[in-house]
Amino acid sequence: MNARIDAARSQTAAERHGTPLYIYDSQILQERCRALRDVLSGADLYYSLKANPNPDVAAALREFGCRVEVASGGELERAVQAGYPPDTILFIGPGKTRHEIRRAAELGVTRFVVDNEDELRVLRDEAAVCTVTVRINPAFEATGGKLSMGGGKPKQFGVDRPRISEFVGKSRSMGIEVTGLHYYLGTRFLDARDIIANTQQIIADAASIVAECELPLELLDMGGGFGVPYFENEDNLDLDVLTQGIQTCIAEARSEFPGARLAFESGRYLTAESGQLVLEVLACKWSYGTRFCVCDGGTNVNLAAIGTGSLGKRNFPNYLVPRGPRAATENPPGPVTVTGPLCTPDDTILKAVQWEHAPQAGDLVVLASVGAYGPSASPHSFLGHAYPTEVLI
Amino acid sequence: MNARIDAARSQTAAERHGTPLYIYDSQILQERCRALRDVLSGADLYYSLKANPNPDVAAALREFGCRVEVASGGELERAVQAGYPPDTILFIGPGKTRHEIRRAAELGVTRFVVDNEDELRVLRDEAAVCTVTVRINPAFEATGGKLSMGGGKPKQFGVDRPRISEFVGKSRSMGIEVTGLHYYLGTRFLDARDIIANTQQIIADAASIVAECELPLELLDMGGGFGVPYFENEDNLDLDVLTQGIQTCIAEARSEFPGARLAFESGRYLTAESGQLVLEVLACKWSYGTRFCVCDGGTNVNLAAIGTGSLGKRNFPNYLVPRGPRAATENPPGPVTVTGPLCTPDDTILKAVQWEHAPQAGDLVVLASVGAYGPSASPHSFLGHAYPTEVLI
Repeated sequence: MNARIDAARSQTAAERHGTPLYIYDSQILQERCRALRDVLSGADLYYSLKANPNPDVAAALREFGCRVEVASGGELERAVQAGYPPDTILFIGPGKTRHEIRRAAELGVTRFVVDNEDELRVLRDEAAVCTVTVRINPAFEATGGKLSMGGGKPKQFGVDRPRISEFVGKSRSMGIEVTGLHYYLGTRFLDARDIIANTQQIIADAASIVAECELPLELLDMGGGFGVPYFENEDNLDLDVLTQGIQTCIAEARSEFPGARLAFESGRYLTAESGQLVLEVLACKWSYGTRFCVCDGGTNVNLAAIGTGSLGKRNFPNYLVPRGPRAATENPPGPVTVTGPLCTPDDTILKAVQWEHAPQAGDLVVLASVGAYGPSASPHSFLGHAYPTEVLI
Repeated sequence: MNARIDAARSQTAAERHGTPLYIYDSQILQERCRALRDVLSGADLYYSLKANPNPDVAAALREFGCRVEVASGGELERAVQAGYPPDTILFIGPGKTRHEIRRAAELGVTRFVVDNEDELRVLRDEAAVCTVTVRINPAFEATGGKLSMGGGKPKQFGVDRPRISEFVGKSRSMGIEVTGLHYYLGTRFLDARDIIANTQQIIADAASIVAECELPLELLDMGGGFGVPYFENEDNLDLDVLTQGIQTCIAEARSEFPGARLAFESGRYLTAESGQLVLEVLACKWSYGTRFCVCDGGTNVNLAAIGTGSLGKRNFPNYLVPRGPRAATENPPGPVTVTGPLCTPDDTILKAVQWEHAPQAGDLVVLASVGAYGPSASPHSFLGHAYPTEVLI
């Protein structure tokens, strides 16, 4: 865990903007972006806008050198508003509508990742594309990661590796050349060796497709899944190991596909650690022997806190910021269950946390490393609540 | 299951309003409301706005005779906009903010369900209340239900039964009299006998509190949790059994608490079966032996489809509406996995459904019984998607 806390900053921001409040730290955003761009030097880095569509965050990452990967018409508009030129936008996603594809073409977007034959027809009819990038659902098994794809398993994404040749043939019969290959093997890889091994497999697989189908490859998107450590037993990606391995991969891909741009994607790695969620404690109480702390935001502003999908039901890094000076008690106050304002027992965002002080109404609870998949990935309007305020500092 | 489907209506509405589209059926809403009001005759019925905050649905239920129960400032504004007079509004919820309480008082709301001592102080300071209703976290065990509360278990809700006397004392010392008791034991009860048994326990518990604390009881809210059958092995609540039992309870409560209004709450029962979600099929594909059908809405518009909380990972009632006339194949097409537009394998809304026809792009997929906890309880802006259109027909 890398989480750091600045109590004074949280308090000042909470007073100024109210709570629940997401604070994004521009400096951390820049540090992570610079570090990842160094690792991937020689390849393009696409920001996965889905991780955090906040306009200021998106614009900052553009300034720091990212391209952008969007997965809906809404994200497309946000990317354009954040200043991404159309030729730096990649439109992916398993379910693009006719309207979204038409709008993307109007805006000048030319790079579409196609997922299936139905979409190929829509891309021809609505965007008059001559070239596409195809997402591959690989037959090989990915190693590591928390939500891994591939391995010859049925998925709604992409075209099965064994059917690529047939797909390319159909595409050509419609006057569309496949000039790009897109892979995405999973999320939250924390061991650099897994990412390297998977990237090697991607390059070999892409080479076999290029040879088999005689593709004039212009783009190879090798995905991402660069993880951040959320929990105590998790470590940072080893960037030295990663750099060495990825640079070898990039050199190999360069020699294998001399005419192609190489690309990677990242959402979580770029944004997660820059974000903190500041909540105000509304009430503290005991119930049948358990100490509860009820806050003004819960799973409505951070669904990830209860772990749907790949995240487990573990606590994000967290801190209590007492409202005023308060001496630490000699005995720690014991475990606290932190809940939100929803009328369901599921609205529990931290379990059995141990703080130095007993919480009181008016204190702040800060969750760290929540800059990715925060409010936009949460049921933020549940029970009539407003979208939380977000500030980039 | 009671789901019925009107293919022509779905098609006409989808053409007119686009998809993803929620259709709410005013007639079903009225039927369910009338039925439940008959069951509860002699008591007030509060609509739990959280189940479906759509303005037209909320206004319709007011016309059909409901009061309203709100759990945030946002819901409060919606209730007022839907025409609920302030004296028919009950403000509940474990985490009300100072601002929300002040605003409610400004609007003329006088019935607050208090959850803890911290809130009692805020109610005194911001709303100058002289009376409150207290939510009880009972010591007795509730029977049945899918998400049951009570039973002496730690919860963020209400005041533990053993501490009520102390709480009433503190409240009185602040000049606030406890004149109401609120119970909510769980959700999705499908056996009328469970609801009756729990209501009997509530009345006995309330009677013991009233005696113990000498409360001038004006309101007894006995909760709800009236379930609807979603899945094949589930049956409708037996309204005859329910009516008989509840009417006996109401008569008993009337004689026990002659000065008090009696109340129940319902969200799901009133709205679930009135709602259908219409999606358009964007693409159909095979992946490693599985047939997929990718739609323009998924867990972003109906998170309940993957079952967070109390609903399991079972399929909601569903139908395929082919775009044009299509002869049924002699052999059924076999199981289909229905997914949404999100870039995660978790975005699977129906598993292994069996339809008469093989789906094709342009067909509609209709999910029934989804009128409760739909888009407002879902991460609807994830991946930049818009809030789905809703129409009351």
